[in-house]
Amino acid sequence: MRQAGEQGTLFVISAPSGAGKTSLVSALLDRDEALSVSVSHTTRPMREGERDGVNYHFVTREAFEAMIARGDFLEHAEVFGNYYGTSQVWVREALAQGRDVILEIDWQGAEQVRRLMSGCVSIFIVPPSADVLRNRLTGRGTDAPEVVERRLREAAEECRHAVEFDYLVVNDAFEVALADLQAIVRSHRLRMPVQQVRHQALLAGLCESA
Amino acid sequence: MRQAGEQGTLFVISAPSGAGKTSLVSALLDRDEALSVSVSHTTRPMREGERDGVNYHFVTREAFEAMIARGDFLEHAEVFGNYYGTSQVWVREALAQGRDVILEIDWQGAEQVRRLMSGCVSIFIVPPSADVLRNRLTGRGTDAPEVVERRLREAAEECRHAVEFDYLVVNDAFEVALADLQAIVRSHRLRMPVQQVRHQALLAGLCESA
Repeated sequence: MRQAGEQGTLFVISAPSGAGKTSLVSALLDRDEALSVSVSHTTRPMREGERDGVNYHFVTREAFEAMIARGDFLEHAEVFGNYYGTSQVWVREALAQGRDVILEIDWQGAEQVRRLMSGCVSIFIVPPSADVLRNRLTGRGTDAPEVVERRLREAAEECRHAVEFDYLVVNDAFEVALADLQAIVRSHRLRMPVQQVRHQALLAGLCESA
Repeated sequence: MRQAGEQGTLFVISAPSGAGKTSLVSALLDRDEALSVSVSHTTRPMREGERDGVNYHFVTREAFEAMIARGDFLEHAEVFGNYYGTSQVWVREALAQGRDVILEIDWQGAEQVRRLMSGCVSIFIVPPSADVLRNRLTGRGTDAPEVVERRLREAAEECRHAVEFDYLVVNDAFEVALADLQAIVRSHRLRMPVQQVRHQALLAGLCESA
């Protein structure tokens, strides 16, 4: 159970597309009820099967720009004419309630978040080899060569920023990579500043010369 | 497999007596072949069942004092007329070979080690309540009251230094506490400075615009 004053940890997770980040984060959330994922805001149109407030908060361009102007975003970016951003309010409230929060964003978003949230923990996920990445991004050969080219360039660019992250997880075997992520989350819950609040009464009792 | 240049992590583990540290560390070592424990030097007499080089390196007072004079120890202390200390040479060599090393020492030793090995990771283990600690240290009532008193005072003194450590593990259920320790060790193997060396070739390959 969470104690008053307990502060959650913000985990920022980035990866090149094709690294398996989304499946890993989804499995991580399934197995850990104390973890929440931040739902981003976007101006891109809703796709079939998506739900507002679940996949994204779908907002108009005007609404998004008003949020930027108010400084509502922890990070935001414009990608191919659409805005994407993470609301500060929701994240800060979740952390203040002692919940751990995951943000799935790219390296540029991670850089913005690191500046605003110094206590955040950042994790970079990579595929086991450049060949695996190339195969996954090349797809079944149905995409235009320039689309594939762009994906490969973006993936390489993303990987160039891996070293800015606190942790590196190699997604070779899915279950191993998942256990790696679980170990990182678990270890941060054991950090003294977190535990000191959670086990305040226990520590005080142990320190009394019995 | 370990790569050249890979540097192991030094884990310093402390606890009041009665916290279950020794059993936890022993189980941790059993399940993790990449972990080694540092065998301390001591001048106290060997007890029945102990082996030189396994439980301790048993040395004379003269030999120990010569080692102190040469600065051989990472930490050392005199407890009830006997010296105890951790050899720097062995620890630094093990780390340089990329092995992770555990030191089981008290808070004073931990303080000395933190000064010499800034990258060390320190973990404090506590029992689940002051009552459990008191019961364990009181024993079966066969010890002299002043011996019990001293144990209780020392345990409380040790616990007052818990907050100087990086992590706090509460040993309520043994398997949970063991999994906590495993998560801490595992997470440190995933830290970027470690992974960057281990996966140097992979990262370089991924960064090339494919």
